Amino acid sequence: MTFRCGLLLFPELTQLDLTGPYEVLPRAPGVEVLLVARTMEPVTAQWGMRILPDTDFANCPPLDLLLVPGGFGVDEAMLDQETIAFVRRTATEARYIVSVCTGALILGAAGLLRGRRAATHWAFRDLLKEFGATPSRERVVRDGNLFTGGGVTAGIDVALTILAEVFDANVAQSAQLSVEYAPCPPFGAGTPETAPGPVAEAVAARYATGVARTAERVRAAAQRLAN
Amino acid sequence: MTFRCGLLLFPELTQLDLTGPYEVLPRAPGVEVLLVARTMEPVTAQWGMRILPDTDFANCPPLDLLLVPGGFGVDEAMLDQETIAFVRRTATEARYIVSVCTGALILGAAGLLRGRRAATHWAFRDLLKEFGATPSRERVVRDGNLFTGGGVTAGIDVALTILAEVFDANVAQSAQLSVEYAPCPPFGAGTPETAPGPVAEAVAARYATGVARTAERVRAAAQRLAN
Repeated sequence: MTFRCGLLLFPELTQLDLTGPYEVLPRAPGVEVLLVARTMEPVTAQWGMRILPDTDFANCPPLDLLLVPGGFGVDEAMLDQETIAFVRRTATEARYIVSVCTGALILGAAGLLRGRRAATHWAFRDLLKEFGATPSRERVVRDGNLFTGGGVTAGIDVALTILAEVFDANVAQSAQLSVEYAPCPPFGAGTPETAPGPVAEAVAARYATGVARTAERVRAAAQRLAN
Repeated sequence: MTFRCGLLLFPELTQLDLTGPYEVLPRAPGVEVLLVARTMEPVTAQWGMRILPDTDFANCPPLDLLLVPGGFGVDEAMLDQETIAFVRRTATEARYIVSVCTGALILGAAGLLRGRRAATHWAFRDLLKEFGATPSRERVVRDGNLFTGGGVTAGIDVALTILAEVFDANVAQSAQLSVEYAPCPPFGAGTPETAPGPVAEAVAARYATGVARTAERVRAAAQRLAN
C-alpha cells in the first residue's frame, strides 16, 4: 500500500509546521511525502529557508492526505485563487485533511471548516469563527476526516495522531521512538495560560499587528465564500 | 547585536534535527540563521526534501554558533575531509558548538568530543565512546561551550536551552510560546525505556544494520584522528 501525503508549500510559511510532520509520517510503511506548490520555483519560508517543491498543483497526483501549514504567508494564500482551488479540489478526493497552526485559516478560506471543531495557533484562534468553525484549545482536534493542530510544534503531535488512526498505535509508537519524541522543554511557557504573565503579554502584543492584518484577510476570504 | 548561527546541511541529513532549531533560534532578537553546505547545490534530506544552502564552506562568514544535525548521511560526512575541516575550523572561532541526534558523531570525527559528556540518538549512543566522549542519556547535555541533544526532536529542547543561555529565560520562554511548544504526544513511546517492549525491540532491530554500518565509519574516523 502507498499512502501519499501532499504537504503544501507557499511563500512565508512557518517551515516547522510542515517539517515536523514531514519527518514523522514517512516512518510508517508505504507512506510517501510530496511537497506541493503553485510552481516549481524554490519556496522561501519565514527566516529565509528555501525549499524545493516536488510537484506543482497541475501535476500533483491524487493524495490520500493533504497537510496545510501556517505562517505569515497565510495572509496571501487565503486569497490566492489557485491555492484555494487546489485545496478545495484535493479535499474532495483525499481521505484526510490536515492543518497545523494557521494553516487552518487556509482550510477555512476553502470552505472546509463550516460547522467543524478546529484548532490553530493560540494568537489566531478566534478568527476560526469567521469561517463557521468552533475554535478549540486542544493541541490536536479531530472532527471526522479533518485533523487540525495548534501552533507550529503541534504538527509533530498531529502527525503521530494520524499514524495511529491510519495505521495503528504500534506504527505511531515506532515513529515516535525513531524520532526520540520524549519532549523535555526547559520551561513550561508553551501556552499563554502556562507562560509567565509578562512573557504572555509581551508576545501577544508583538503578534497584535499581524493578527489584525490576518483578521482583515480572513474577513475578505469569508466574504468570498459567502458570495 | 547580531548572533549568527550556522546550521550544517549535508546529503541524507535528518531534516528535523535542523529545522526544529532553525524555527526556534531566530525568534530571539538579532539572531541570524544561515544554512551552510559544501557547495551551493540543493541538499537532499532523508525522505527526499531538498533544501537550498545559503552559503558554502569557503564563503561562510564567522559564526557565533555552529549546529550540526544528524541522519544517515553522517556516515559519509564523518569521513569527508572538507566537512570535517570546516567543522574543526569553525569550532575554534564560534562561541557555541551544538549537535542534534547523530550530528554528535560528526563533532566526534572532528575531535571535538574528547573528554566531553555528550548526547546523541539512543540507538547510536555507545558509539560516542569511540571518540573519547562520555555518553549521556539526558535529552540536552551541556559541557562547557558544547551542547549536544538526543535524537531528532531533541533539537527543539536544545535550541530553547541555548536561547536561555545566550540571552535569558524571558527570551527562551517567548520563543517557546511563539512556537506553542506545549508538547502533548499521544503516546509515551519516545525512549526505549518508556516504549512498549515489542515496539522498542522491533525499532532497535530495524536500526541494527544502520548502527553497524555507522560503527565501522566511526572507527575509521577515530583512527584518522589518532594518526
